[in-house]
Amino acid sequence: MNNKIKWLREKIRILDMQGMIVSNPTNIKYLTGINAEGVLLITRKENHYITDSRYIEEVQSVLTIDDEIILHNYTDVSSYDYENFFSFCENVGFEESYITYSTYKNYMQKYKANNLEETENILEKQRMIKDENEIEQITKACELTDNCFKHLQNFIKIGMTEKQVAYEIEKYFIEHGADGLAFETIVASGKNSSKPHAKTTEKQIEAGDPITIDFGCTYRGYHSDMTRTIFAGYVPEKIKPVYELVLKNQLQTAKDMKEGINIRTLSRNVDNDFSLHGYNLVHSLGHGVGLEIHELPYINSKNDNILKENMIITNEPGIYLAGEFGVRIEDTVLITKSGCTNLTKSSKDYIIVDAN
Amino acid sequence: MNNKIKWLREKIRILDMQGMIVSNPTNIKYLTGINAEGVLLITRKENHYITDSRYIEEVQSVLTIDDEIILHNYTDVSSYDYENFFSFCENVGFEESYITYSTYKNYMQKYKANNLEETENILEKQRMIKDENEIEQITKACELTDNCFKHLQNFIKIGMTEKQVAYEIEKYFIEHGADGLAFETIVASGKNSSKPHAKTTEKQIEAGDPITIDFGCTYRGYHSDMTRTIFAGYVPEKIKPVYELVLKNQLQTAKDMKEGINIRTLSRNVDNDFSLHGYNLVHSLGHGVGLEIHELPYINSKNDNILKENMIITNEPGIYLAGEFGVRIEDTVLITKSGCTNLTKSSKDYIIVDAN
Repeated sequence: MNNKIKWLREKIRILDMQGMIVSNPTNIKYLTGINAEGVLLITRKENHYITDSRYIEEVQSVLTIDDEIILHNYTDVSSYDYENFFSFCENVGFEESYITYSTYKNYMQKYKANNLEETENILEKQRMIKDENEIEQITKACELTDNCFKHLQNFIKIGMTEKQVAYEIEKYFIEHGADGLAFETIVASGKNSSKPHAKTTEKQIEAGDPITIDFGCTYRGYHSDMTRTIFAGYVPEKIKPVYELVLKNQLQTAKDMKEGINIRTLSRNVDNDFSLHGYNLVHSLGHGVGLEIHELPYINSKNDNILKENMIITNEPGIYLAGEFGVRIEDTVLITKSGCTNLTKSSKDYIIVDAN
Repeated sequence: MNNKIKWLREKIRILDMQGMIVSNPTNIKYLTGINAEGVLLITRKENHYITDSRYIEEVQSVLTIDDEIILHNYTDVSSYDYENFFSFCENVGFEESYITYSTYKNYMQKYKANNLEETENILEKQRMIKDENEIEQITKACELTDNCFKHLQNFIKIGMTEKQVAYEIEKYFIEHGADGLAFETIVASGKNSSKPHAKTTEKQIEAGDPITIDFGCTYRGYHSDMTRTIFAGYVPEKIKPVYELVLKNQLQTAKDMKEGINIRTLSRNVDNDFSLHGYNLVHSLGHGVGLEIHELPYINSKNDNILKENMIITNEPGIYLAGEFGVRIEDTVLITKSGCTNLTKSSKDYIIVDAN
C-alpha cells in the first residue's frame, strides 16, 4: 500500500472511523495518482476505486500492484456491493466540505452506513505539507513562470491589448513544457489594475500604464502563482509611493515567514502598515499552492494557525485605488525551519517595458 | 422586479416556501445578470444580494432599480441581520445539489431558519427552456464555432501537434469576439481518438489519422459545443463503416428530436443500432447547453422525460475502438415544436485536411 493511503488509514483509525469515502478528485489524485472521476473507498481491509468506462484504461495504467487498490467499473457494482463495503463499520468518514447535501443523502442511502462522519478536511490539511516530489514539481512550475516573465519583458509593447499579453503567456507555457495555465491569467493595465480581481480585456496598453500581471502554470498537476506590476514606457510619480509601500510589505512578510510564525499576525502586520498610510489590505495576504491553485492554508487575519516547514504558500500584498490604479506583488514561497525560500525569483525592482 | 425573479417567487410560493437561498452563481447570473461570488436571498418581501468588496462596484453596474435587489457588502451584514432575513418563514428553499454538506450546516446555523427545504433543481430545470435572448447568444456562439471549423480545415497540416491545433482554436475564438473557450478543447488524433474523453497531447498528426475535434466557445456567457472527426491526408477504409454508422445515427437522432419525444427512447435507439453492429454507446447521447457547457437535460437512457420547445441540447453519438480509433459527431441543436434546428451547421461529410 502506498504511504499516503497508509497515513490516511492510520489517521481515520485514530478518529475512531472504520472507513472513509473519498470523493474529491484532487484528494484522490494526491492519495493515488489517479486523475479521473470516481470515488475511493477506504474500507476495513481494502481500498476500492469505482469509476466509469471512460477512465478504466487510464486508471489501470496509473495503478500498480503495490497500491493495493481494487478497481471497479461502477456498472459492475450492485446495490448489494455498496451496502457491503462498510458493513460492520460504526463510523465512516466523508468529505463534508466537498460533497453536496444531495450527495450526502445519496451516500447515506447507498452505503447504508451506520453513521457518516465529518472528517474536517483531514486530507486538505495533510496536503498543506509538501513532500520532496511535490516541492520539485512546484519549483519547476515556478521556474517556467520566471522564464515566461523574462520573455514578456521583451514582448510587451505599448499598443498591445491585455488579451494579447495573456495569450502570449499561455502560448509560452504550452511551448515550454507546462501542462497549461494554473488559472485564467490576469493582465490589467492602467485603470483596470485598480480592481483586485480584474478580468483581462481588449484594452490597449498605453504609455504610463501600470500593468498587473497575475499568472502561473501547472507542471505535472502542480501549480505556480506570481504577480508583478510593471510599467509601460515610464513609472508615473504618483504610483511610486504605493509601489514602494507594497514592496516593503512583501519583503517584510518574506523576512517574517518561517515555521512557527502565526498566520494572523503576518496578515495583520501588513494591514496595520497599510492602514498607517491610509490604505487597506482588501484581500488575503496569500494562500496555499499545490495540486490546486488555492488550497490550505489561507493566509489572512482570521487564520490563527502557524506556518509549518514545507508548506508552499503565496505572499501577495496589494493596494488598489478604485478608478485609478493598483499594485500587487506576489511570489510563491516554500516555508523552511528558519525562514522561507522564494520559488518565483523574478525581480521586484521597477520594470519598464517598451521604454524608449 | 425582473421576470425571472417574479417567476421564482411564484414558483416557491406554490411549493409552500416563504423564501429561498440561491447560492449557485450560474443560477444567480440567470436570475439577475450578476456575475460574481455571493448569495441571493429571496425573502418574504425583498430580494437581497450579499457579496464582498471585490465585486460591489461591478454588481452595482449590472443592477438597475427595476431589479429590486438590495445589495450588501457581507462585512456589513450582522449575525442579527442573517437571522432576520427569514424570520416568520416556515420553509426556506436551498440548492441541495449545489451547496456542500458543510455549507448546509452553516446556513442552518446562520439563518436560523425553521426548515431548510430541498428545491429539487427548480432553477436548473427552468434554465432548460431558453428565451429569445438566450437562443440568440447561443446561436452566435455556434456561428463562431462553425467559422472556426472552416478556418481549421485550411490550417491543419500533417506534422502539427494536437496542442497546436487546440491553441489555434483558442486564438481564433479570442480574435473573433468570443469570451473564450466553452471548455478545454479536445484534439485527439490517430489512436488518441479512441478515448471518449481524450486529452490533447503533443502527438503529431500523421497521414491517415482520424482527428476528433471537440470544441466550442462562450459568447456573452452562453456556450456552444461541436465535434467533428476529420481525416489527415486520406480516409482509411477500416474507419469508414464506423464513421457511417455514427453519422447515420446522428442524422436519425436529429430527425427524431422534437417537442414531446421521450429522451430515453432517443438514446436507446442509438444504443440498439450500435449494438446490432457490435458496438456500444458508452457515453450520453447529449446534454443541455446554456450558461453552462453541461446542464439539464441529460440525454441518456436513464432520463424518462420528454424534450420541450426551446431546449438547446447536443446530439453527439460516438464509437470508440480501444487502442485503435474513435469517431464522434456532435451538433448543438434547438428543439422546436415540430423538429429541431442544428445551430452548428458544419458539414458532416468526410473532411480531409492536408490532402495532396
